[in-house]
Amino acid sequence: MIYLDHNATTPPAPEVLDAMGPVFVTAWANASSQHGPGQDAKRVLGAARATAARALGCKTSELIFTSGATEANHMALTGLLAAARAQGRQRLLIGAVEHSALLRLARSLTEQGVPVDFMPVSPDGRIDLTAAEALMGPDLALVSLMAANNETGALMPVTEVAAMAHAAGAAMHVDATQWIGKLPFAFADYPADAVSLSAHKFHGPKGAGALLLRQGRAFVPPVPGSQERGRRGGTENLPAIVGLAAALERLGDLASQAEHVAGLRDALESGLAELPGLHVWCQGVPRLPGTSYLRFGMVDADVVLQRLSRLNVAASSGAACSSGGSEPSHVLTAMGVPRDEALCAIRFSLGDETRAEDIALLLNSLPALIEPLLSVATES
Amino acid sequence: MIYLDHNATTPPAPEVLDAMGPVFVTAWANASSQHGPGQDAKRVLGAARATAARALGCKTSELIFTSGATEANHMALTGLLAAARAQGRQRLLIGAVEHSALLRLARSLTEQGVPVDFMPVSPDGRIDLTAAEALMGPDLALVSLMAANNETGALMPVTEVAAMAHAAGAAMHVDATQWIGKLPFAFADYPADAVSLSAHKFHGPKGAGALLLRQGRAFVPPVPGSQERGRRGGTENLPAIVGLAAALERLGDLASQAEHVAGLRDALESGLAELPGLHVWCQGVPRLPGTSYLRFGMVDADVVLQRLSRLNVAASSGAACSSGGSEPSHVLTAMGVPRDEALCAIRFSLGDETRAEDIALLLNSLPALIEPLLSVATES
Repeated sequence: MIYLDHNATTPPAPEVLDAMGPVFVTAWANASSQHGPGQDAKRVLGAARATAARALGCKTSELIFTSGATEANHMALTGLLAAARAQGRQRLLIGAVEHSALLRLARSLTEQGVPVDFMPVSPDGRIDLTAAEALMGPDLALVSLMAANNETGALMPVTEVAAMAHAAGAAMHVDATQWIGKLPFAFADYPADAVSLSAHKFHGPKGAGALLLRQGRAFVPPVPGSQERGRRGGTENLPAIVGLAAALERLGDLASQAEHVAGLRDALESGLAELPGLHVWCQGVPRLPGTSYLRFGMVDADVVLQRLSRLNVAASSGAACSSGGSEPSHVLTAMGVPRDEALCAIRFSLGDETRAEDIALLLNSLPALIEPLLSVATES
Repeated sequence: MIYLDHNATTPPAPEVLDAMGPVFVTAWANASSQHGPGQDAKRVLGAARATAARALGCKTSELIFTSGATEANHMALTGLLAAARAQGRQRLLIGAVEHSALLRLARSLTEQGVPVDFMPVSPDGRIDLTAAEALMGPDLALVSLMAANNETGALMPVTEVAAMAHAAGAAMHVDATQWIGKLPFAFADYPADAVSLSAHKFHGPKGAGALLLRQGRAFVPPVPGSQERGRRGGTENLPAIVGLAAALERLGDLASQAEHVAGLRDALESGLAELPGLHVWCQGVPRLPGTSYLRFGMVDADVVLQRLSRLNVAASSGAACSSGGSEPSHVLTAMGVPRDEALCAIRFSLGDETRAEDIALLLNSLPALIEPLLSVATES
């Protein structure tokens, strides 16, 4: 199989599984227990935290392990909003094309009385900074923006929006789920107060993520408990935490890896450009290196995915978390893409283990399967 | 090592690790993806859900997988409170000796304006039903009570309290973290609307738990997303879910296992009863089969734990999640136990793999180590 759905998830790396395996057997004790096995588990936890913090360029005290990015996003939004409420600030401002789970959370918060506004995106898929600026204000509690969009791959103007948020006295959260592991990152230099990440997006295990929280930032833990310095309750999932750390540790030179992956992605797009009616979204803006979001004329996405499946290629019609429905992508809709075009969207997301041969094979076989559909789709 | 801290956590069973191992390698895809690997993962998820639901006596639609019991408790409290608020009910009523994480959450909710009351316990460690009855009322949104206390092992009068809660029109949640896996349970017959559990308490993996939520019960998901029928966002942690299901599936005849474990626990208590000043809490009330919470006269818990450590026995001075501090157990304090006595508390929690030889070895060695301390403690 040629797996081109790395934005949905990635296989755990062998190094990650090798690191996790022994933990299940030798460090299964509760890391909060005072006896020998508990203290052994605590040391394993501390070592994993140090490794992860080094890789993320943060202090160990700034790293809160969670079950994944969705939990980290929930923790950031509700925890930072609750802290700001004490300062008389209530309003939440988020990007219009955030991950569907974060948008659902925002809707739920609205129903609970939190004022929520949305930063619109331009047709190019990036946040409209003029519109964003107009939405800042002294009542603002928190701005939340993704670092990179999971569907289009568009990189968001985090630095600019963070500057606006901070000028307005608000906290800044970034959902960096799609960025971390693909592009260089260091929390120490990063303009946000809180950053979410998920291990399974970069060959780590599922069930492991983190919220990075700037030292000194006021925060009310939504799921309190004695673990994670009182900021996240629940017995630590030590194998997953060790796996997260191992996945971060194995990341190589991300800048050159990104260049390599982008080269393969560009080769894919160039090869497909011979097909009449090919349209690639966000091709002109800075994107994640491996992401290509496109449509083949007006050929329905499900039909293209069937053909890809015949070639044993795994791709997606958008975010996994909202796929399988008949609704067009909320990301494309926010960019002003008509419904019928949006329903043709195919996302290829390449990874660091994607090979030039995979792309060559795809380019050798796919056009012949798509071309007949293009004429039918044009006729209808 | 003789591990007598099963209420803190348990080692994953070999069958559990055997079930999880292949999932990391063959079913790592995102279960929400529409392609072949995604659909394969979805089938594995469905099979694990069916297995777990069968073991728990619930409908598959009533089973929401979480990262553990602390998350499940948070989900139950905030989700059921939010739903009740729409009906004009706001007040939360919880047991005074709930797990420390749940108590912290209740404190946090209080600070956010939720009225919270506490059901006191009698000196015997069980909920005072007369006092509980007096705390019911038409403004009550939710009652939350643990099935069994993690420190004393005391079984709580869930049936009686649930009847009161329902008579008042409130929802009933039970934190059954210490019960499930140790004593028979079936959600279909259970008096609560929502039940929390954690896999690592019964030889399952860490990072896996569930909230059982009665069909038709109004609920506002605190961490929304497309997964778990819209009730819990986040890419499914499939290896952990498969491990949870395997841990439930391997549970044998719990009633006879409980009898066996209680026999060992009773032998331990009988053997230690020769020591002057031995006091066992909750000995006279229905308890978890493996739990013994006691003090050796006025010998400080830390000193006893050091002696146990010399014997290579792992026990605890109370809940792992609040151990290591100098504060007396909130459970014993709520029972009216004086501070100096509470600071002597030692918890032994036996498990299904505890052997008669382990108890015999402990009884052969421990009294000789404790006796000299008893006279010193009495002198001082």
